[in-house]
Amino acid sequence: QGLPVPGDFGQDTVEAPEPAVGQFLARTLWLSLDPYLRNVMKGHALYGVALQPGEPMHGESVAEVVDSRHPDFVAGELVLLKGGWQQYALSNGAGVRKVDPALAPVSTALGVLGMPGLTGYTGLVYLGEPRPGQTVLVSAATGPVGSTVGQVARLTGARAVGIAGSDAKCRYAVEELGFEACINYKSGDLRASIEQACPDGVDVYFDNAGGEVLAAALANLAMHARVILCGMIDAYNRDTPPASGPFLGPVVAARATVKGHVVFDHLHRMTEMQRVIGRWIREGRFKYREDVTDGLDNAPAAFCRLMRGENFGKALVRVAGYGAGAA
Amino acid sequence: QGLPVPGDFGQDTVEAPEPAVGQFLARTLWLSLDPYLRNVMKGHALYGVALQPGEPMHGESVAEVVDSRHPDFVAGELVLLKGGWQQYALSNGAGVRKVDPALAPVSTALGVLGMPGLTGYTGLVYLGEPRPGQTVLVSAATGPVGSTVGQVARLTGARAVGIAGSDAKCRYAVEELGFEACINYKSGDLRASIEQACPDGVDVYFDNAGGEVLAAALANLAMHARVILCGMIDAYNRDTPPASGPFLGPVVAARATVKGHVVFDHLHRMTEMQRVIGRWIREGRFKYREDVTDGLDNAPAAFCRLMRGENFGKALVRVAGYGAGAA
Repeated sequence: QGLPVPGDFGQDTVEAPEPAVGQFLARTLWLSLDPYLRNVMKGHALYGVALQPGEPMHGESVAEVVDSRHPDFVAGELVLLKGGWQQYALSNGAGVRKVDPALAPVSTALGVLGMPGLTGYTGLVYLGEPRPGQTVLVSAATGPVGSTVGQVARLTGARAVGIAGSDAKCRYAVEELGFEACINYKSGDLRASIEQACPDGVDVYFDNAGGEVLAAALANLAMHARVILCGMIDAYNRDTPPASGPFLGPVVAARATVKGHVVFDHLHRMTEMQRVIGRWIREGRFKYREDVTDGLDNAPAAFCRLMRGENFGKALVRVAGYGAGAA
Repeated sequence: QGLPVPGDFGQDTVEAPEPAVGQFLARTLWLSLDPYLRNVMKGHALYGVALQPGEPMHGESVAEVVDSRHPDFVAGELVLLKGGWQQYALSNGAGVRKVDPALAPVSTALGVLGMPGLTGYTGLVYLGEPRPGQTVLVSAATGPVGSTVGQVARLTGARAVGIAGSDAKCRYAVEELGFEACINYKSGDLRASIEQACPDGVDVYFDNAGGEVLAAALANLAMHARVILCGMIDAYNRDTPPASGPFLGPVVAARATVKGHVVFDHLHRMTEMQRVIGRWIREGRFKYREDVTDGLDNAPAAFCRLMRGENFGKALVRVAGYGAGAA
C-alpha cells in the first residue's frame, strides 16, 4: 500500500541454474525500472502477469547469453527479455528479442529505443496526431516517455511544452531537449502557468501524471484537442482507485478527444520507431538521459526513488558489465 | 443556483411590436424546452449568448409569420427561430429556417427532426461509429436525444441498451423504441445492472447524464470503446463545476476514446439527418414522443419539471394553435 520503501523487498541467494533442452541461461547486464511495476506488485493484470509472493520481482532486462541449449541463441549474444530482478535468468526464447550492440549503447533497448520510446512515439504520432505549429504539452517531460514525446513533437514541427518536478529538470528540458518552455508543477499555479506557456491552448496533452496535473491541462485545451492518457502514476501508489478524476466539462467545451494509450497495442511499430528515432540520435538531434544505479542490491532503493519522482532520466540498474565473464 | 423553481421566473405583458423594414413579426406556436437553457440562465457562453436580467428567456420556437417587411418571408409561412419565451417575436431573418408543414407535424422541427435529433444522430454516427452487433448504451434513453441514439443504433444493426429514470420510461424504451434492455438507474446497483445487460461490454456509451451514471458506464467499457460526452445535466444545476469527475483508469484499460460533442459543429448535417430519420418515421420504424404543456404561462413549471427529469419525451410548450389568427 502507498509509496513503496526499500524494506518492502527481500533478497534471496540461489545458484545459477542449468538450462534444459530448449532453454538458455542469460546473465543480466541492465535492468529496467518502470512505474508500471508498481501495479505488477499489487497484482493488477493490465500490464502483464501479477507478481506472486516469493517470486523475483518482474522487470525487463538486457542480458548476455552465457549457456544455451536453444537452437536460436548462442553464448555471447545479447538479448532483451523479461528477466526479472536477478543476476541470471532462464528463458525458452518466447518474447525474447536480440539486441544489436553496433546500433546504439545496449541500455537504450530498455529506454529510448525500447518500450518507453515506443510508448511516447506511438502515443504522440498515432493517437495525438499533432499538426505543424500546434502545441504539445507533456507531463514527466524529462522521463524516457515524456522526453520522447517532446522531442518527436519538436522534430515533426510542433511546439513542445513540458511539465516536470524540479527547476533542474525544466532547465534540462529547454536547454538540452529543445522544449520551448517547461513548467515546474511544484511552484506556482499550474493552471495559470500552462495558460501562459500555451497562449493558443493545448492541442495535444500527453498525460503521464493524472490527478491535479491532468485537471490543469484539461482546463487549457484548444478546440478539438487530443488528450492521451498514458501513465497514471498518481493512481499507482493508491490501494484502491481514487473515487473520482478530473471534471470533464472542459472536454465537451473543447470538443476534445481523450484516448487511453497502452503500448502493448503498438508492438508492431517497434521497428519503425527505432528507425526514425535511431536516425535522429545518430544525427545528434535527439537526446536521451539515463539515471543509472550500480548493483542489483540497490534496485529496491532506486525503484522507490523512481516512484517518488526523484529519478532524472530513464531509471536503470547496471547489474554486470558486458563481457566481464560469469561471476 | 441549484434546481430552478417556477418562482425564479417573472412575467411581463407587452404589446406585439411592429416590424421595421427588413424585419418580420412571428407568432409563437411551439416553444422548445431544453436542458442547455439552464446554462444560458447562468450566463455560460458555450451554448449561445448569455441571458441578461429583464430579457425574455431564450429558446427555440416554431412560429408563424404574421406580418413581414422582410423580402424573404411572407405572412402565413412557418419558421424555426430563436424566438424566446414570448407570444410574438421580431426577427431580421438571421439564423431562421423555414419549416415545411407537409413533411411532418411542425413540432418535430424542435425535436426529432431538429436540434435534439441532430445531436443524437451526429453524435452516434460520426463520433460513436457503432459497428453492427456492437452494444450502444445511452442515458436519458427516452428523451429526444437518447431515443434518437437508441433507435439509430438499432436501425444501423447495433444493440441498444438504455438508462432511464423510471420503470415506465424503461418499458417504453423496450416496447416502443426497440431497445434490447433498459435500466432504471434509481433501482439497484447501476454498475452491476449495466454489466448484466451488456455482457460483452459497452462499445459505445452516449452520455446525457454525467456524474455517477457516467462512472458506472466507464466501468463497463469494451476494448476500444467510444464514449460520447453530450449533455452533462448533472453539472448544469450546480453553481460551480464539480471539483472532479469519474476516475479515468478504465479509459486507459479499455484503450477507449472519450469525445466531447457539441451539436453546433454538425449543423451542416441537418438535411442528411432529416432525410434519414424522416424516412424511418414515415415507414413506421422510428418513433418519437412529446411531453406537451399548454400555454406560455406554464413554461416555467414545465422547465423545472424537465430539470428534475420528470418529463417523458421531448418537452414542448404549445403557445398558440396554428392558423388560429392573431390574438
